Amino acid sequence: MTTPVRRRGRPGHDVASVLAASVEVFNERGYDGTSMEDLSARLGIGKSSIYHHVESKEELLRLALDQALTGLEEAAEEIKSSDGPAVERLELLLRRSISVLVDRLPFVTLLLRVRGNSDVERQALARRRRIDHLVTDLVKEAVGDGALRSDLDPAVVARLLFGTVNSLTEWLKPTSKQTAADLGDVVCGVVFDGLRTAT
Amino acid sequence: MTTPVRRRGRPGHDVASVLAASVEVFNERGYDGTSMEDLSARLGIGKSSIYHHVESKEELLRLALDQALTGLEEAAEEIKSSDGPAVERLELLLRRSISVLVDRLPFVTLLLRVRGNSDVERQALARRRRIDHLVTDLVKEAVGDGALRSDLDPAVVARLLFGTVNSLTEWLKPTSKQTAADLGDVVCGVVFDGLRTAT
Repeated sequence: MTTPVRRRGRPGHDVASVLAASVEVFNERGYDGTSMEDLSARLGIGKSSIYHHVESKEELLRLALDQALTGLEEAAEEIKSSDGPAVERLELLLRRSISVLVDRLPFVTLLLRVRGNSDVERQALARRRRIDHLVTDLVKEAVGDGALRSDLDPAVVARLLFGTVNSLTEWLKPTSKQTAADLGDVVCGVVFDGLRTAT
Repeated sequence: MTTPVRRRGRPGHDVASVLAASVEVFNERGYDGTSMEDLSARLGIGKSSIYHHVESKEELLRLALDQALTGLEEAAEEIKSSDGPAVERLELLLRRSISVLVDRLPFVTLLLRVRGNSDVERQALARRRRIDHLVTDLVKEAVGDGALRSDLDPAVVARLLFGTVNSLTEWLKPTSKQTAADLGDVVCGVVFDGLRTAT
């Protein structure tokens, strides 16, 4: 905003609440299928009140994707600067990513639906790819250490790992009883140790 | 179509080719974000030519989702009528589902993005849920048989299983070198036996 504008929204609306409601609608209708009218109807405020907080629908998208990406990037930075065997850092990255996903579920859900239809989306995809590369590097290092099996393509394994984590967004509800720690146990239990009982 | 209409499209356009091109655009722009104008531009034919083949954009969606669902339902029916331990039928269902996903990639991709915004979408979700329930039942049966570990919630495990399979749509390209059999080996290798080497 270049000029101060008198607040006309309902009391209590700020950028964070406009963002939260907008992300809900984006996830329900798709970003491209959502108009400022849709957001105005959901928020119960006029479009001009929304424009008081953000310049455009695309700015809402950028802010929302940033919520997801900064969380995931912080997790990645923590893992990069930590010591220990690659397999342990990989497990920690999966668990941290699941925490971010649980804490910022609507934002991560939106991020995972981005297809690169605009500069904002392409920048988000580029940031996401850098995190994905860290997973691939850790898988390769852990295979090299002999900690993970070497008969499976590490690039495919890495994709399956974040695919499995990301698939949580498909069914997890903000009201789900599972904690991030519970979900980390199940995901890591499946992918590291497998479902089959010892025979 | 209730009345015969003179074909006005380019030679070679039939329902299948209109459908294939439409699904590409739906996957790129989102179904709600796609207009008949977008489809007309992609196909290089007038809107009236599209209406010669289908009554509406929604009919294209219904036909496209049906392509994915009939494939997955056939796989489910095959597994339901097969004998053998639950763990083997579960593995076969994952492998068959991966085959359908590889063979009908754009259609399955579209199916997985459906959120229930219309009757057509809700019917597709209901059909998808019936297949998902079969996975859950097989996981529970295999846990009961002692073939799969019992310390993880079978409902969460089932969701992770189809989440892992479905995540293939996020990166698989029609030009990918991996065959359905290769991908089935990696997915089943990870989820049944785990990534960790024996220690």
